[in-house]
Amino acid sequence: MIATRLTDKFGLSVPVISAPMAHAAGGKLAASVSGAGALGMIGGGYCDRQWLEEQFFEAGNAAVGCGLITWKLAEVERDEPGFLDMILNRRPKALFLSFGDPAPFIKRARKMSISVMAQVQTVSDALHAVEAGAEVIVAQGTEAGGHGSRRGTMSFVPEVVDAVGDRAIVVAAGGIADGRGLAAALMLGADGVLMGTRFWASREALVPDGFHKDALDSDGDATLRSILPDIARGYEWPEMYDIRTLKGPWTERWRDMPEGLAAEARRAEYVRASREGDSNGAAAVAGEAVGLIGSIESVETIVENVMRQARECLSGNWRAR
Amino acid sequence: MIATRLTDKFGLSVPVISAPMAHAAGGKLAASVSGAGALGMIGGGYCDRQWLEEQFFEAGNAAVGCGLITWKLAEVERDEPGFLDMILNRRPKALFLSFGDPAPFIKRARKMSISVMAQVQTVSDALHAVEAGAEVIVAQGTEAGGHGSRRGTMSFVPEVVDAVGDRAIVVAAGGIADGRGLAAALMLGADGVLMGTRFWASREALVPDGFHKDALDSDGDATLRSILPDIARGYEWPEMYDIRTLKGPWTERWRDMPEGLAAEARRAEYVRASREGDSNGAAAVAGEAVGLIGSIESVETIVENVMRQARECLSGNWRAR
Repeated sequence: MIATRLTDKFGLSVPVISAPMAHAAGGKLAASVSGAGALGMIGGGYCDRQWLEEQFFEAGNAAVGCGLITWKLAEVERDEPGFLDMILNRRPKALFLSFGDPAPFIKRARKMSISVMAQVQTVSDALHAVEAGAEVIVAQGTEAGGHGSRRGTMSFVPEVVDAVGDRAIVVAAGGIADGRGLAAALMLGADGVLMGTRFWASREALVPDGFHKDALDSDGDATLRSILPDIARGYEWPEMYDIRTLKGPWTERWRDMPEGLAAEARRAEYVRASREGDSNGAAAVAGEAVGLIGSIESVETIVENVMRQARECLSGNWRAR
Repeated sequence: MIATRLTDKFGLSVPVISAPMAHAAGGKLAASVSGAGALGMIGGGYCDRQWLEEQFFEAGNAAVGCGLITWKLAEVERDEPGFLDMILNRRPKALFLSFGDPAPFIKRARKMSISVMAQVQTVSDALHAVEAGAEVIVAQGTEAGGHGSRRGTMSFVPEVVDAVGDRAIVVAAGGIADGRGLAAALMLGADGVLMGTRFWASREALVPDGFHKDALDSDGDATLRSILPDIARGYEWPEMYDIRTLKGPWTERWRDMPEGLAAEARRAEYVRASREGDSNGAAAVAGEAVGLIGSIESVETIVENVMRQARECLSGNWRAR
């Protein structure tokens, strides 16, 4: 048992959160993570109502949270007011917001006594989220898979801890896939960790076999940040964010001519290849921690191993004497 | 006392190395770091013989190491054979090589029983350096100030630890400026840390007051990686490296038109502004850890504070209970 402010607040036995990875983090993954004593998140991503309803159904009675892409949520709420209420009425264990201004949504969640976790990539965004009422700040380093920005986890986490003080719980994200990373994050002053790629590489994640195989064949040098997948899918992300994926035949083909990707036909092809795990037609979304992952495991095994290794590190049995 | 394989091998009382920062890490800084029980490095950088002789003189009898930019050393050795011998004959406590293939120089150093530390930015470069005989691998994350590459410290360090096994000592670099970072690095499996920016922000560093003031006014978001300073100075760095500096009026002016920088006249102006700490004419070389630094301190105070805080973290008094 590693007790922190995070485990206290959410009644966890493990200070670990699974990242709400769009498309990959469905109800089964989220429920398994919560079942293992950590906090599971459904990756609501681009706010596809039908997919979300299916995944909440899949999660059953498990106490899971739900993550959304904030700028997309703002669009959806403008066009289809009530979407957020649909989520909040399901009483997720936490609402996880990332990539955009969370302030208006924090207010609405807190009115319903639902805690908000705001994932941030800059110190000023951390302070803004705290002032807006976020109870948990997830400080995301550039190592992370999927969308993110530039700061590295190692200095960003303690800087956010110092900036936020006692006003919020701080969780470290980016480059963490094992017990060493959890122990290190606690040393940096965080109350726990968010892991994406490690849970992406689990049996319960909605990830095609081909991408899992590519990930096991990759070391951590074999990823890149780019905007290629967003161009291919026609997503208009704010400029400060790009997306970390594995390098592969598709990223290498388009890297130097991204403008060729914008055609509508590419979009269908990208979606198909993503579904099928075909790195000739799409990029697998994973972070630098892919180099720490040697096999696809069950969520239960992953959480057990992370905790065992973290406890060993924290009890003084690090490599150093 | 935190004892690791690094402290054992070099007879240190503190598992900390000061980065051999070109221009900034002179003999006074290196000697002070070694005097405080850590391992001080003279920043030989671009292999300016006269400057190096002055700095070794300044270091006196202190046991210090010397760092060189490997691709520049290769050029210099081609044009002026014997330069490396001049360094090795001074019996530095370690030869620190970064940015290029260290293999030929490792051989020569080890013939004279001088240990080599190879700083690397990719897993494959780590393996290559170990196979070439480097006894210490410095795994440098992208957070670092000055030249570097893309991997984040948080996942890069444990991945290098796993790849290298027992064949070399691993030191973590990039984003580390306090005892939390040292404790975190030990959890990740490293035997110690290399700190640049923290020692750059010391009284003993060769850094003009204007740049120190800029650094104290900056948070960790206020840096960028670019090739602007290398263009301005006419340095032909290999493509995989760029240089992290503070953002300032000079970087903002040239960011979108770097080609305007190449003129010879710019070079003299850049050198002048660098010497004078004028951010209108040059960029201060510092890393993301600048956001963890609140004052310019003596080396002695820095090392004491890092060790006190690391011991506190390691004894279980992290923020978490």
